Amino acid sequence: MIGNQMHNLCKELFPINRSLSGDGVRETLKILQRENPELKVHSIKSGTEVFDWTVPDEWNCKEAYIITPDGEKICDYSVNNLHIVQYSTPQELELELEELQEYLYSQPELPEAIPYVTSYYTPRWGFCISHKERQNLKPGKYKVVIKSELKKGVLNYADLVIPGESEDEIFFSTYICHPSMANNELSGPVLATFLAKYVKSLEKRRYTYRFVFAPETIGSLIYLSRHLDHLKKRVKAGFILTCVGDDRNYSYLSSRYANTLADKVAVNVLKYEVDAFKEYSFLKRGSDERQYCAPGVDLPVCSIMRTKYAEFPEYHTSLDNLELVTPKGLEGSFDIYTKMIDILENNFYFKTTTIGEPQLGKRGLYPSMTTNHTDYSEAFLYRNFLAYADGANDLIDIANIINVSAYILIPIVKKFKNYGLIL
Amino acid sequence: MIGNQMHNLCKELFPINRSLSGDGVRETLKILQRENPELKVHSIKSGTEVFDWTVPDEWNCKEAYIITPDGEKICDYSVNNLHIVQYSTPQELELELEELQEYLYSQPELPEAIPYVTSYYTPRWGFCISHKERQNLKPGKYKVVIKSELKKGVLNYADLVIPGESEDEIFFSTYICHPSMANNELSGPVLATFLAKYVKSLEKRRYTYRFVFAPETIGSLIYLSRHLDHLKKRVKAGFILTCVGDDRNYSYLSSRYANTLADKVAVNVLKYEVDAFKEYSFLKRGSDERQYCAPGVDLPVCSIMRTKYAEFPEYHTSLDNLELVTPKGLEGSFDIYTKMIDILENNFYFKTTTIGEPQLGKRGLYPSMTTNHTDYSEAFLYRNFLAYADGANDLIDIANIINVSAYILIPIVKKFKNYGLIL
Amino acid sequence: MIGNQMHNLCKELFPINRSLSGDGVRETLKILQRENPELKVHSIKSGTEVFDWTVPDEWNCKEAYIITPDGEKICDYSVNNLHIVQYSTPQELELELEELQEYLYSQPELPEAIPYVTSYYTPRWGFCISHKERQNLKPGKYKVVIKSELKKGVLNYADLVIPGESEDEIFFSTYICHPSMANNELSGPVLATFLAKYVKSLEKRRYTYRFVFAPETIGSLIYLSRHLDHLKKRVKAGFILTCVGDDRNYSYLSSRYANTLADKVAVNVLKYEVDAFKEYSFLKRGSDERQYCAPGVDLPVCSIMRTKYAEFPEYHTSLDNLELVTPKGLEGSFDIYTKMIDILENNFYFKTTTIGEPQLGKRGLYPSMTTNHTDYSEAFLYRNFLAYADGANDLIDIANIINVSAYILIPIVKKFKNYGLIL
Repeated sequence: MIGNQMHNLCKELFPINRSLSGDGVRETLKILQRENPELKVHSIKSGTEVFDWTVPDEWNCKEAYIITPDGEKICDYSVNNLHIVQYSTPQELELELEELQEYLYSQPELPEAIPYVTSYYTPRWGFCISHKERQNLKPGKYKVVIKSELKKGVLNYADLVIPGESEDEIFFSTYICHPSMANNELSGPVLATFLAKYVKSLEKRRYTYRFVFAPETIGSLIYLSRHLDHLKKRVKAGFILTCVGDDRNYSYLSSRYANTLADKVAVNVLKYEVDAFKEYSFLKRGSDERQYCAPGVDLPVCSIMRTKYAEFPEYHTSLDNLELVTPKGLEGSFDIYTKMIDILENNFYFKTTTIGEPQLGKRGLYPSMTTNHTDYSEAFLYRNFLAYADGANDLIDIANIINVSAYILIPIVKKFKNYGLIL
Repeated sequence: MIGNQMHNLCKELFPINRSLSGDGVRETLKILQRENPELKVHSIKSGTEVFDWTVPDEWNCKEAYIITPDGEKICDYSVNNLHIVQYSTPQELELELEELQEYLYSQPELPEAIPYVTSYYTPRWGFCISHKERQNLKPGKYKVVIKSELKKGVLNYADLVIPGESEDEIFFSTYICHPSMANNELSGPVLATFLAKYVKSLEKRRYTYRFVFAPETIGSLIYLSRHLDHLKKRVKAGFILTCVGDDRNYSYLSSRYANTLADKVAVNVLKYEVDAFKEYSFLKRGSDERQYCAPGVDLPVCSIMRTKYAEFPEYHTSLDNLELVTPKGLEGSFDIYTKMIDILENNFYFKTTTIGEPQLGKRGLYPSMTTNHTDYSEAFLYRNFLAYADGANDLIDIANIINVSAYILIPIVKKFKNYGLIL
Repeated sequence: MIGNQMHNLCKELFPINRSLSGDGVRETLKILQRENPELKVHSIKSGTEVFDWTVPDEWNCKEAYIITPDGEKICDYSVNNLHIVQYSTPQELELELEELQEYLYSQPELPEAIPYVTSYYTPRWGFCISHKERQNLKPGKYKVVIKSELKKGVLNYADLVIPGESEDEIFFSTYICHPSMANNELSGPVLATFLAKYVKSLEKRRYTYRFVFAPETIGSLIYLSRHLDHLKKRVKAGFILTCVGDDRNYSYLSSRYANTLADKVAVNVLKYEVDAFKEYSFLKRGSDERQYCAPGVDLPVCSIMRTKYAEFPEYHTSLDNLELVTPKGLEGSFDIYTKMIDILENNFYFKTTTIGEPQLGKRGLYPSMTTNHTDYSEAFLYRNFLAYADGANDLIDIANIINVSAYILIPIVKKFKNYGLIL
């Protein structure tokens, strides 16, 4: 089962110390490269200007912990990399508990969870701790050690391009900048990895497929700064892969005006291929559609997720783990995305070749006898498909009009093409 | 009462052995010709290719029955022409009850009803029988006799054209291919017959009116094959007349995109001239809009019915009889269709001749005194009509905007034209 | 409090004997001129043809009363000017109570109220009386005295134009033809007066502002007959000011197609700046939008009211008084209309200057730290504004898309302009 393979890859990537930049990102990309050797890793220097932004320094953290008055080591980065506020500056100091408190972050409503906190662009330091542990801290002197390094270095990202018959592209983007979290991090790059394998396995590819792995926000801006004209010209539909690993509901977050080919295929698949889904307007966005759908960029990008970021209780905490993300959840997303790929590959405008209905009966596509017990369901599907194959509708339009999944029309299209009944 | 006249004509036509072709069709058309002598009967030879179809052989049946082991004659075609499967091949043979069973058709959920079964394009034979009678059949040898004939002959249809001031046409199509059934057969040609009389009675006719009587599906295809260019050029609104005789609800089945003049007038009349109606999308079609609204044909054709075919329990059985179809039901349909004709005849774009509201009061169209007890309802109707008589709306558009039946605006239009208040 | 100033002006104007024409109108306009000396009073001669209408004679009434059989003076015009039917012809006669009854108007469902009745275009006379008083009238001879005058004279109206940077105009129209009623009369001209003061107080005015004070219907027609081409060319948004003084709900009456800039700003303000409002279609119109929105005139005019005319029980009676109209009610309307003015002054199309999102954090417009407890509400508002500042949307469009009042975006626009983030 592909869900298990995906879950195993999540497991392998889980412990790595990813951040916006640094060794963890490179280590992650190396593993992804093993899965798809065509993956190309790129880098950009700290300080480079990217539109309105500047690439921040590279951050690496070797060690980070606190020694309690009793000599116990807590908040140990080597035990859980969420303990350190991302991009913490190096520290070695002693403070009273009261002073320490303002550098501690916990989440009272989830007392067991270590929260995830970042401060990429403002120098700071701090530790994340479960609220339960925090409440048990005794007064006294605490020793803080952060062996981190902020230096002019590089920020890394990667892309993978699988050529098709056309230079027009289907685009996927995911991020690789969060430490040990499963749904809101690893589910994305892992799904991207397996979708790339799926695309390569296709006998025939109409579209070229592009997969981007980059740190969120700054990474997508960097990618845009280097490929904007190409992407604007070539991308016909694109998707942000994030939070695709739990097995609760499905979610859909639209593009800026919810009117792109990506939205069209996503809504059809969600409406007819899953039991239920939640719809979020673009106002609720929080990932890289912020950049890809920005004015002047205007890529046709939306997102199908399982439970949307910021909408599940474990979000941005140590509880977003490999129990929350399941083989079944990952496989559900894989299934939805491969169906969208199949539909996009077959999404053409069709036109019937006959005037009036063709005689389906002589081709065995219509019951030869008319009684009140005849089952016409298949025949009606054929007739309805043909009625709207009038040159004005593509496959998804027809599916939407006749209230079915575009995916189930693919074999019907092949049948009708074989009979010469549509062009 | 016109409903009674219509019902009487149904009664006269009911016993005739109609099928897709044959003597019964000709006999039926002869009676309709007596009612409207301008009706022209046409024929097409068996084997003629019609778009993707071929005109089938002519079928006639002289006798058909089964002799039971007790010597009783059952399933006698001369008693009820539904007993024979339409287009049954000639037979004379003996079989055991068990063998016979596979040639019998009954409807367990309506045990008293003889179902209606056809097999036009695949050679077969069979008998239709009430389920109650079928269950009482005793084991033993049964003798089957079918004196039918399938031969190269002709298939017949007819049309009736009533010229108007313009060559633009209002089009009606109905079918004449079912044996003794009343709603899903006779109500259609009978309504067409009386609408033709109504149209001829009009003092002035803006439109030319065309009425087509043809076997369903193959008949409409034949008609299209011979008149396609003319119809595409001239037909401004058209209607399928079927199932217009019972007195249950009204139904509306739209054209392919529900956006034609026919749809527009139908929806306005149904919304404001009857208590309630059911709306069916084009996906639920089953009559000749399958051909008239097909891609490449694209005629502006929809359908107002009483209870829609396939939606009433008696459909396609011997219970679809002259008790189901009533004078009141037929007259209701006549009323709706003549109102649509009246509206279409008066459906122009109107434009007020004054700037600002005209002074209705000086023409007696507005209360001369303003109190809190004054009844403004008529005056408001006038004002609202004039407000939207801005050159951008036709009569039906205005009616829809001001939430009234277009039919009740016809006398108001005449009044305003007399006063020179609109062009 | 401005509501009090407005209410005081209502009080001053309340007792004046206004009608469609005559001294009361001139007296009213003189007081309004004192408030805004730029107000210009105009006149048009009785008998002048105005589109489909004719300017009626000037009417003045000096005295009007009835003497009861007991010698008591009732229905005294000098006590309440609603007692006389507007445009009553002069009378001096005696009648029995029974005969008198057909000249009396009362409102049984509001027994304490004197109703308001007019007969401008058909010569008549009559008295309005509370139903309670009417029921106590004893049989006997009544003496009727009406010292009125109908003569060739003039009809008056006024306008006030406050120039702005552009010749494009925002237009307000209100009426000055009702006698002592507060909501359905004085609230309109008083709000117009204070809006003119507000407009003059603006440091910078993009638009020219035009305020029209004219008798309802005939007055707006006269104004159109003299300024139609100018208004059609210049008016970008306009509003009828009527029934803006009570403190019940707000109401919105749309323009003919509810699709003008006036409708757009009105709906945004009502949706987001007040708790609730009632929406009325153009079919429910009853004031000067009848003329301004007529075909061929087509001005972009709608109306925000408090309780709409004909929808409150006190309408067109002596109970529409200065208790019904309150300082709070007037101030609420002033607040809404000044907000609309502010929005219109700032309603431009905006376009972001960056590709992708700008880095709001470095300008202090985004939290510098990301935790699950961070408040992003302000930051999200900024991001959402910028996402739709794509050159295709004006300020109100953006507000509608991101579900906020356009009014609260005005300071954000200024902030972003200062940072150079939008053009």
